[in-house]
Amino acid sequence: MKVFSIALTLSSVVFAGSFYSSNETDTSTYEANRPHLHYTAPSGWINDPNGLWYDAKDQIWHLYFQYYPYSEYWGEPLYWGHSVSEDLTHWNYSGIAFSPPKNNTGAFSGSIVVDHNNTSGFFNDSIDPRQRAVAFWTYNTPEDQTQFVSYSLDGGYNFTPYSGNPILNISSTQHRDPKVVWHEESQKWILTLAHSQKYEVLIYSSKNLTSWQLESSFSHHGIMGYQYECPGLARVPIVKTFHSDELPSNLTDSDEVWSNSFFDNGTNSSLPDTAWVLFLSVNPGAPLGGSVNQYFIGDFNGTHFVPYTSQTRFLDVGKDFYAFQAFFNSAGGTDVLGIAWASNWEYGQYVPTTPWKSSMSLVRNFTIRQYAPNPESVELNLNSEPILNLDGQLKNETSFKIYNQTLLPSKPLSYNVSKPTGVFEFDLTFTVDDSYYNNTIFADFSILFRGSRDREEYLKIGYEANAASFYIDRGHSKVSFVKENPYFTDRLSVLNEPYEMISSNLSSYKVYGVFDKNILELYFNDGSEVSTNLFFFSDRNFVGEIDISTKHDKIFIIRNFEFRQLR
Amino acid sequence: MKVFSIALTLSSVVFAGSFYSSNETDTSTYEANRPHLHYTAPSGWINDPNGLWYDAKDQIWHLYFQYYPYSEYWGEPLYWGHSVSEDLTHWNYSGIAFSPPKNNTGAFSGSIVVDHNNTSGFFNDSIDPRQRAVAFWTYNTPEDQTQFVSYSLDGGYNFTPYSGNPILNISSTQHRDPKVVWHEESQKWILTLAHSQKYEVLIYSSKNLTSWQLESSFSHHGIMGYQYECPGLARVPIVKTFHSDELPSNLTDSDEVWSNSFFDNGTNSSLPDTAWVLFLSVNPGAPLGGSVNQYFIGDFNGTHFVPYTSQTRFLDVGKDFYAFQAFFNSAGGTDVLGIAWASNWEYGQYVPTTPWKSSMSLVRNFTIRQYAPNPESVELNLNSEPILNLDGQLKNETSFKIYNQTLLPSKPLSYNVSKPTGVFEFDLTFTVDDSYYNNTIFADFSILFRGSRDREEYLKIGYEANAASFYIDRGHSKVSFVKENPYFTDRLSVLNEPYEMISSNLSSYKVYGVFDKNILELYFNDGSEVSTNLFFFSDRNFVGEIDISTKHDKIFIIRNFEFRQLR
Repeated sequence: MKVFSIALTLSSVVFAGSFYSSNETDTSTYEANRPHLHYTAPSGWINDPNGLWYDAKDQIWHLYFQYYPYSEYWGEPLYWGHSVSEDLTHWNYSGIAFSPPKNNTGAFSGSIVVDHNNTSGFFNDSIDPRQRAVAFWTYNTPEDQTQFVSYSLDGGYNFTPYSGNPILNISSTQHRDPKVVWHEESQKWILTLAHSQKYEVLIYSSKNLTSWQLESSFSHHGIMGYQYECPGLARVPIVKTFHSDELPSNLTDSDEVWSNSFFDNGTNSSLPDTAWVLFLSVNPGAPLGGSVNQYFIGDFNGTHFVPYTSQTRFLDVGKDFYAFQAFFNSAGGTDVLGIAWASNWEYGQYVPTTPWKSSMSLVRNFTIRQYAPNPESVELNLNSEPILNLDGQLKNETSFKIYNQTLLPSKPLSYNVSKPTGVFEFDLTFTVDDSYYNNTIFADFSILFRGSRDREEYLKIGYEANAASFYIDRGHSKVSFVKENPYFTDRLSVLNEPYEMISSNLSSYKVYGVFDKNILELYFNDGSEVSTNLFFFSDRNFVGEIDISTKHDKIFIIRNFEFRQLR
Repeated sequence: MKVFSIALTLSSVVFAGSFYSSNETDTSTYEANRPHLHYTAPSGWINDPNGLWYDAKDQIWHLYFQYYPYSEYWGEPLYWGHSVSEDLTHWNYSGIAFSPPKNNTGAFSGSIVVDHNNTSGFFNDSIDPRQRAVAFWTYNTPEDQTQFVSYSLDGGYNFTPYSGNPILNISSTQHRDPKVVWHEESQKWILTLAHSQKYEVLIYSSKNLTSWQLESSFSHHGIMGYQYECPGLARVPIVKTFHSDELPSNLTDSDEVWSNSFFDNGTNSSLPDTAWVLFLSVNPGAPLGGSVNQYFIGDFNGTHFVPYTSQTRFLDVGKDFYAFQAFFNSAGGTDVLGIAWASNWEYGQYVPTTPWKSSMSLVRNFTIRQYAPNPESVELNLNSEPILNLDGQLKNETSFKIYNQTLLPSKPLSYNVSKPTGVFEFDLTFTVDDSYYNNTIFADFSILFRGSRDREEYLKIGYEANAASFYIDRGHSKVSFVKENPYFTDRLSVLNEPYEMISSNLSSYKVYGVFDKNILELYFNDGSEVSTNLFFFSDRNFVGEIDISTKHDKIFIIRNFEFRQLR
């Protein structure tokens, strides 16, 4: 009730569109524990990314988000907050894009398209075709969830509701998250919507963005949990090259390597240039608890999405990556870029950050690539590459490098970071002696990222040869949230294939990591798996020491370790 | 190498069939930390349960298992160990059932059928039809994995290899775990086999148990991880009753409530009496890390298994339940009973038990039931019920009961266990005020099971109203394995629907738990979800105190808590 009374007091201000100054990147308002590379709102609660689109005229990226600015907890009225960026790394808060009509309601998640050809009739010639932004969102009331359209005549900063709203109403309280894409072959707009508690992704088509026809339902796939949320289709480029080093020995080095399982006819077809990916979020009910984002690779013919296989895959195997959405448009035209909410509904409201609560993931660029999950298979896999522009105000300082160092118990490697900022990236390539796989010895090496003010706090990443898996341990903290929240899973593991088979018993692995105050994104083997997880040290106890060690002789060789601190 | 030299020394003894005395239940050899209700071998390493069958003549249950008796680590020669039981709770070790032909090979996992009608020709009239045991197993050598048959002329204690072995050989090193069932309609034997790294379950049929024809392949379903293992088909009874209390408000109380999603025609068909379930293990690559057992509900027509849906589901959502196998036959005829290995390949070899390593799960009885995972759906679900016979040497002592107690921060409930044994069960029913769901307050209650010798060690189980999920925390231990093994996930969560909707904002949940020295099995809402997890306290620090508490007024009412210590 307290939260709600504040909302009423401030609501008149909200409609002005900007009540926080957009100077969060100004060093004078520097807040020590706030992520620098991951988007956070000035203050208050955020969750799902919404309405992602690229303005090709002004060359600006738009990010909207579920926003309750009055509190560090979710609440209503729930707005679409708005932020813009020229490089996908530095974002400027641009105020509230739009508000729900009533205080005890919400402008729930949705998407934006550029209606270049004015199929909707919302625009006249004065609006540049590249800026004809049309937003689709769910109007959440205590009675139902219906789908609304709003359009912008100023390039995405202010929006006008369509007079014919709602455009879709099935008298359901669980019908939400419209994501619209363009389907070139059928020359139609396609809208996907979660019929959440029926475990359905409803697929609609339209010629004009306001009149929609139900074409099909994709239901009961993957992990179902309590409900489906935030479905979305994207046509993703397929990268056809496949290094011979990565190939299983019984397969040939060719662009046409292709698992029989993807098509019914079982032939080694040439790979197409693209495949469709259906993104689908589930919450609660993830295997790790709470929220998870899965994806399916398949075909979409304008009416039906058919996955190539019935397998279940996760977009990110960490605990903090949810409600992913892809951008409409990209600077490159065919690139599929997207952002997720970097938290988990199990504990997102209780994490120890203030005055902001929750951040977005880094922007990722997605491609489909072939990879070998074991010695006998080649499968398609969605590959993630982080987009980071570090040329601007963030200075890239290479601080620490190691090459070709065999790890020995007697010689642990240690590095002290000068003037720790809590923001850095690292590259790691190592080799492991494969004869320790399925052995009886627990043979691991680990990297401890220790706090500068209190080294008893650390984040641990390692690899163990017998289980052939990476592990992440985020439990070594004095922060009460970390110690006490029973859903804040301490230990996670990540299975990934070797990046390269150097010889019959020597495999190499690659890891790229970004630490950003309290967010860690780990990209394994150039992004064939990603694990995104929050972690929390005591106030301003940034990573100040890096310790690499093993208890086992000569199993691991660090081929390359490079640590780059960012300010 | 040390392990192997011991193997060579003892191998001549092995073939005698029994080199450990079978007195592990004798109190004179009582080992304080050994589970009493979960099967463990006298000493050494065990993994997958094998060859489960019921001898209807002598009314004896047979459990075989992957066994390396010379070490607490997996090794070769790998045997089929053997144990028998009259009540599925008390087991007697019966020696080595059979051995692989060579020392550096293994008699890998497989199954047993009763060849009542002597379709194989292995038996003559002197062998009772109910005891005509035929075993199928994978012969693992460094060169390949091929499928072998052995038969027993003495009711399952000793086995003779079939002269025509192998019965299946596809020149693969990854082709294993034959499980055979009888398909009544086609009057054929059906064998399922994992083509592990191709992500295929191969389905074969036979009239005579030795000549097999490939009928189909079930591939690329569910979580795939690194490889598939231990597939198995079973025809599971469907329980048609559905309590009106459990029904979503928009559905009627009827035996025919049935989700549209299960059949293409979308009608509310009557439920059949049974459905086929395909069990499938994956390791490594489980979402929680390492090993996991999934299942699919569908139809099997004698050649093809077709799941009703493409969803992914887990047989047990804990970390320690793998390589499940169902018994061939049951005392009741149609019951589907089964056992899993209660460990995880990520850390199973390193858990702090000695001289035995690993145990089996309790025997579970499976049915398919309808349940409502959210207010809008009714789905089929595999339900698990533990089989426990506590009438024999284990005495059932009701020690502690609570009825209708509203939890208050000022009045935590505490109970001290007299003469703790480390073996007990409990029943819990509680109600939760649903208005705290999706609220901003982290509102939980928890039960701490504390050690009797050191109460700083405890296992914690709780439920939080905002996330509407159970949690399990097994990390509060002084045991170095628990503190240091990075794969021993501390915190796990379990989502389960309410057992009963008492009113519009009052839900009730049920939990049944069995603690057995270092194994905890938790059955939520009469077994609609189960979570099985190992935990470790210091030596003989058995649970001696139970603390139930909350920090929040009047959200939770303990309707019933009953603790029963077992000796």
